[in-house]
Amino acid sequence: MGIVGSLYINGKRIVDLSADFRLKDYLTYEKWYETRHREKDLLKEAVYGLPELNKDKIKKARLIANPGCYSTAVILALAPLLKNNLVKEDDIIVDAKSGVSGAGRNLSLKTHFPEINENFYAYEVEGHRHIPEMEQELSILAQKKVKITFIPHLIPVNRGILATCYALLKQPLTTDNFLQIYKDFYKKEPFIDILDKGQFPQIKEVTNSNRCRLGLMVDKEKRRLLIISAVDNLVKGAAGQAVQNMNIMCGYDEKMGLEGE
Amino acid sequence: MGIVGSLYINGKRIVDLSADFRLKDYLTYEKWYETRHREKDLLKEAVYGLPELNKDKIKKARLIANPGCYSTAVILALAPLLKNNLVKEDDIIVDAKSGVSGAGRNLSLKTHFPEINENFYAYEVEGHRHIPEMEQELSILAQKKVKITFIPHLIPVNRGILATCYALLKQPLTTDNFLQIYKDFYKKEPFIDILDKGQFPQIKEVTNSNRCRLGLMVDKEKRRLLIISAVDNLVKGAAGQAVQNMNIMCGYDEKMGLEGE
Amino acid sequence: MGIVGSLYINGKRIVDLSADFRLKDYLTYEKWYETRHREKDLLKEAVYGLPELNKDKIKKARLIANPGCYSTAVILALAPLLKNNLVKEDDIIVDAKSGVSGAGRNLSLKTHFPEINENFYAYEVEGHRHIPEMEQELSILAQKKVKITFIPHLIPVNRGILATCYALLKQPLTTDNFLQIYKDFYKKEPFIDILDKGQFPQIKEVTNSNRCRLGLMVDKEKRRLLIISAVDNLVKGAAGQAVQNMNIMCGYDEKMGLEGE
Amino acid sequence: MGIVGSLYINGKRIVDLSADFRLKDYLTYEKWYETRHREKDLLKEAVYGLPELNKDKIKKARLIANPGCYSTAVILALAPLLKNNLVKEDDIIVDAKSGVSGAGRNLSLKTHFPEINENFYAYEVEGHRHIPEMEQELSILAQKKVKITFIPHLIPVNRGILATCYALLKQPLTTDNFLQIYKDFYKKEPFIDILDKGQFPQIKEVTNSNRCRLGLMVDKEKRRLLIISAVDNLVKGAAGQAVQNMNIMCGYDEKMGLEGE
Repeated sequence: MGIVGSLYINGKRIVDLSADFRLKDYLTYEKWYETRHREKDLLKEAVYGLPELNKDKIKKARLIANPGCYSTAVILALAPLLKNNLVKEDDIIVDAKSGVSGAGRNLSLKTHFPEINENFYAYEVEGHRHIPEMEQELSILAQKKVKITFIPHLIPVNRGILATCYALLKQPLTTDNFLQIYKDFYKKEPFIDILDKGQFPQIKEVTNSNRCRLGLMVDKEKRRLLIISAVDNLVKGAAGQAVQNMNIMCGYDEKMGLEGE
Repeated sequence: MGIVGSLYINGKRIVDLSADFRLKDYLTYEKWYETRHREKDLLKEAVYGLPELNKDKIKKARLIANPGCYSTAVILALAPLLKNNLVKEDDIIVDAKSGVSGAGRNLSLKTHFPEINENFYAYEVEGHRHIPEMEQELSILAQKKVKITFIPHLIPVNRGILATCYALLKQPLTTDNFLQIYKDFYKKEPFIDILDKGQFPQIKEVTNSNRCRLGLMVDKEKRRLLIISAVDNLVKGAAGQAVQNMNIMCGYDEKMGLEGE
Repeated sequence: MGIVGSLYINGKRIVDLSADFRLKDYLTYEKWYETRHREKDLLKEAVYGLPELNKDKIKKARLIANPGCYSTAVILALAPLLKNNLVKEDDIIVDAKSGVSGAGRNLSLKTHFPEINENFYAYEVEGHRHIPEMEQELSILAQKKVKITFIPHLIPVNRGILATCYALLKQPLTTDNFLQIYKDFYKKEPFIDILDKGQFPQIKEVTNSNRCRLGLMVDKEKRRLLIISAVDNLVKGAAGQAVQNMNIMCGYDEKMGLEGE
Repeated sequence: MGIVGSLYINGKRIVDLSADFRLKDYLTYEKWYETRHREKDLLKEAVYGLPELNKDKIKKARLIANPGCYSTAVILALAPLLKNNLVKEDDIIVDAKSGVSGAGRNLSLKTHFPEINENFYAYEVEGHRHIPEMEQELSILAQKKVKITFIPHLIPVNRGILATCYALLKQPLTTDNFLQIYKDFYKKEPFIDILDKGQFPQIKEVTNSNRCRLGLMVDKEKRRLLIISAVDNLVKGAAGQAVQNMNIMCGYDEKMGLEGE
């Protein structure tokens, strides 16, 4: 936080991979991250660095808050729905699963090999730090308060996130309708894949790449939409997205350095 | 199916691990299993072999339909709610995850090691064969039509099922209330563990055992209940439960041969 | 070490799972374990607790030094050869592989899931602590100084050891000859399996069991013998063997509590 | 085999990834691959495509036999020793370990996930098809018949080979001497890493790369040399090496397309 402040004063442009400038409300930050925010003035400057939503702001930004890994997978999965007022804002469930690198490199019994190998479980069930970030960005899109039930699980693999999302429809549309809506929404985005009807993403398809792959299905009563989203938490969910943001900030090709999957 | 028929005629008592006698409606069976049912008369005789719900019937049964692995995890997770009329019957989501042995021993590219190792994905998204079995048994409990959105995923581990279930409450109760309701419901059941508040099960805790472990949490608006259920698909989800059924049928101690975890 | 001393003085019989009383020469102990030996007097009392070699001594022992996991796999693989003067004592190679639980429960970057998952490597190449223990026990059997080249590797699995051993023959014998020699040597031993010609053990075959499985093959020039040995490092390589020792000390059936694999 | 023949006649230059043109002696080929060789005339034309040994021949070759994955790891590990007459030619042991993709994409119970996950074992103990290929190329270097004891094992990972090699010295040299000999031997080779004293390779270090990493150690009696070699079986052990060969044949930079690890 302090480093960002001094870089900013010295006129540098910054892509910050930490969570420090993601939440507009510093009190929410202080509650979830259990630390004081010491650079509140910069919060207004910071642009949430999800290029598929904020590309124009990123071009001119001096400070980018690079999104969290789960947030990237979930916001990209839900954005077309909330932007177009298609689902109930207060009844969205996200059942998310992450590879172990998502837990970071700090040693803990949780990530000790014999504890997580051949295991699978939900964690931080009572509240994960990425929830306010997702709700903030989706509420901006919806222009209404969005609420998400978010339950993360740990998969015994090195990398990859799969988010299985359930939303209630405001009006009965078909899977084909939604596929078209998503394709339109992301039509200029080089890293978003909308899968064909009946196809759903696997984490292996995005490993080592900056892609987000999305699969959709309306249930037979046309009441609920299923959206499955896959990203690599270490690329589109972190360093790859930071490079994408930098490319946009610097006027480079957005895909530079990010195509060799 | 044929073998069961001839054993039955010869007066044997049977625990059938196949799906042939689980569904009361043979047309539903024929649709999901894509084969003709050739022993329709026995369907009325068959008892669904989930001991925690049907112990008295199992004692006298001549033919037990041993439940599917997913069905065991899900029905045990939801039974106290539907029996006690506590959640909306038509708005239940089950996000389920299974180890690879759940896919059976037949060779397929899906279960070829390099395809599923370091991978994770949803499968049979458009409908899994265990859905009618779950809905049938839960509807009997609820005395009302129950509908479940069920999305299974494959975890790269050998064994274990985790089912993360989301239900909408009919009335606002607390986590403590629900923990008490579950403890009461399962108070005589030796293989069901209700975890303390704030605790949720891991598949490693049930591996090689006949236990089902359940963790619960009401969300902060008291609208929705989260229930997480873990079983070993090869034990409580298959052979262990068959032994438990046999023990009950024969008047043995229900736990015989099932305690060395 | 101190606890063992005070238990011993109080007349208790002890099975010590640590390495403290395995090496007869305290200087060797102090060199490899980098600590002073404070109970040197007990070293003469201690019996090396490998029941297949020392059963009579174990019956009367007051202090058992329970063998290391690698040492168990390797000594059982080589004992019939050295006892019967069949291979060159100074030219034995053991290429050993262990699951990650062999590295203990202390947190380290080595056993951090993303570091060892999808990885494989040799470690402690310049010398592993179990070498003096193996050489000591095999030298007693051979009545001659035995020297072993021992290279351990880490396998990304929870448990199990496979030791692939290469020895030079003193005289040309066939695979059948050696299979007979091994069967004779271990004929009274309930936990040793000598596999049929052409068969070699897998670690999965011994997981959760107290068995050691051995496969043998003479190369076509009848110069070298290959011996492959598999044990579960947490059972026959540790706690199971301790129970086996306790059973023998107490006059119980050696297999008590150790048969449910 | 037939395709290669017709491409050759039509003047094409070929990099063949199969084993068909690796063995100079067609009878050896027919014995190990259990099929008739139908293009014996081309065997004299074929160049064994290990660029670190045969670069000049590869430049002009019309037909390259791309080496096997194990052979690549083992020949690169041993070539400097045999070329320089430093070890006994008839007493070399290679204890090799491969990830599961090395077993190919054909379905088999061996590579069914629950069979190999959490398992580890030696296979083709009585003889692996790559042995004649290694012995042929190393014998050419040694100008003497080289014999290798080769025992392959399967590791439950997707990719990577580690070969742990043991050779007897003809004269007492130090680890430093050998490190210098290897550095000199491979000094122009961009894909060979000779590790510093006390360092040994991990398969993770070569995953997705065309590198071969080598670590060395002389034992304390200066009688035996340990060489550990790591490659990715799918890159340097297969497709990457084919690209490297093509680059050399076409006069391109040898590293083209192979540097983004």
